[in-house]
Amino acid sequence: MITRETLEQAHDRIRPYIHRTPILTSTGLDELSGCSLYFKCENFQKIGAFKARGALNAVLSLSAEQRAKGIATHSSGNHAQAVARAARMVGVPAFIVMPKNAPEIKKTGVRAYGGQIFECEPTTEARERMLDDVLKQTGAALVHPFNDYAVIAGQGTAAKELIEDAGVKLDVILTPVGGGGLLSGTLLAVKFFSPGTEVVAGEPEGSDDAWRSLQSGKIEPAQSQTIADGLLTSLGDKTFPIIRDHVKEIITVTDAEIVEAMRLIWERMKIIIEPSCAVPFATVLKAKEKFAGKKVGIILSGGNVDLERACKLMTRQIP
Amino acid sequence: MITRETLEQAHDRIRPYIHRTPILTSTGLDELSGCSLYFKCENFQKIGAFKARGALNAVLSLSAEQRAKGIATHSSGNHAQAVARAARMVGVPAFIVMPKNAPEIKKTGVRAYGGQIFECEPTTEARERMLDDVLKQTGAALVHPFNDYAVIAGQGTAAKELIEDAGVKLDVILTPVGGGGLLSGTLLAVKFFSPGTEVVAGEPEGSDDAWRSLQSGKIEPAQSQTIADGLLTSLGDKTFPIIRDHVKEIITVTDAEIVEAMRLIWERMKIIIEPSCAVPFATVLKAKEKFAGKKVGIILSGGNVDLERACKLMTRQIP
Repeated sequence: MITRETLEQAHDRIRPYIHRTPILTSTGLDELSGCSLYFKCENFQKIGAFKARGALNAVLSLSAEQRAKGIATHSSGNHAQAVARAARMVGVPAFIVMPKNAPEIKKTGVRAYGGQIFECEPTTEARERMLDDVLKQTGAALVHPFNDYAVIAGQGTAAKELIEDAGVKLDVILTPVGGGGLLSGTLLAVKFFSPGTEVVAGEPEGSDDAWRSLQSGKIEPAQSQTIADGLLTSLGDKTFPIIRDHVKEIITVTDAEIVEAMRLIWERMKIIIEPSCAVPFATVLKAKEKFAGKKVGIILSGGNVDLERACKLMTRQIP
Repeated sequence: MITRETLEQAHDRIRPYIHRTPILTSTGLDELSGCSLYFKCENFQKIGAFKARGALNAVLSLSAEQRAKGIATHSSGNHAQAVARAARMVGVPAFIVMPKNAPEIKKTGVRAYGGQIFECEPTTEARERMLDDVLKQTGAALVHPFNDYAVIAGQGTAAKELIEDAGVKLDVILTPVGGGGLLSGTLLAVKFFSPGTEVVAGEPEGSDDAWRSLQSGKIEPAQSQTIADGLLTSLGDKTFPIIRDHVKEIITVTDAEIVEAMRLIWERMKIIIEPSCAVPFATVLKAKEKFAGKKVGIILSGGNVDLERACKLMTRQIP
């Protein structure tokens, strides 16, 4: 189980190797949304996403013996780069199973850190099957993208910094939810370091398995009909209970709402975020009445977009 | 003349109304350029550019009587928004002469702050003629975009913050040069607060009047063949002597080099900058040997781009 001390130790462990990312505010977006927004810019994080935190904490938590034969994982992108970077830092190989339709920019990132890519069909089953093979062949240690307490604790350090640096007591913190690593870590960080703050998650309508899991009380399988390519996975048996017990609400948004939120952040805040990252702000714009007048922290999760594709999305050259 | 105290007072005057913008670093861009880069992110400044500083200092330095009939200026964009915002803050009208081909995003910004736009032909002569008319008609006070000591002092506060916040002694600071307000202010801030640091300016080849002015020893007229739409003006009689006496060097770059530098900053740093703003980084990439191993501060001057046009530039849909 993750305690206050687990989170503090995780933060101490990774602090020298990550950016303490800035919190940006925008009068324009505050006016538009009717609340006070504090954007924690993990798009500026190492490897361009919060995933640097969890992978690093997990890899550094393994003994030299445990990680001697390398690290293996599956990921559609950011976790893949994060594991490749962490493995290189400790001098062991990284074996990364990636769906063959993962964005080229993310594959390039993995290769730049010396990671070895194994391409598979873009289904959860295909990923897991190939990962099993890779683990058997290599004897590498598994660092799962979200269903791992060391990863969850690492991701929670983003919210911990947001709480420490915002300069105000936040009423709400929002994250996107895919496999639930960031959301679980955020829920625990809030529980220990900012009790009273609510946590709300945003999820794409086309991949609303976390929302459905809350309704049904069990882990529902993911669909994959959304441009938010970082949020296609279902919850895990470690993330689901934390989310079920602590999250205030999960709100779903359409792809059109995600693109509009992304465009607003690019134009008004002058920062580049990926579609998955725009989901919490899309949630605020959709459910304005829930956030009216509140101090709202948003974890901007990442900025690794294919520039050409993102530009076409936002300038409506593709739907 | 601008003294150390002038700069300190300017900073105190405007500090409550501007962002203290963050300094970002990027391991990837350091590796690519062979030096240590400290990017002062004025693209996150109020109105999306450092111009918020100078206009504010100038408007706040006027007496209530001097500014009672409003503020007038001419500008291709960012200074226009900055004056409109400053005028609204002190409750007087803003009269802005803008070339009719100024980017729509900048006109929209001026109107959003309640500024009244007078469109003119895109030549220095047309601008100045129309501004003369506006000044006569309205009795407004002039806040020139760069040839004004209060504006120069205000722009210098960006470099002052960069010097204070970088955490290291910078070997060089780079800015772009158009009319020379930012460059002059930076030169004075360095003179007073970081003697020994060199200042280098980047300029588009297609509008290299500042470079030619240094060669000839007098103010040369501007051309206007560049995508860097913020850098089309020639130097003024207040900025030229400061630049002539203090700048280490002006280096020119092509539009292709500017676009490549812009794309790298978007992709690697996840921030949005306008073409003019990419000129100093393009300069570093072009003249790597001059900056090798040095600690290099770069003032990222602004982020107000037409997203569609910028996307097309970077994805090579337009040359």
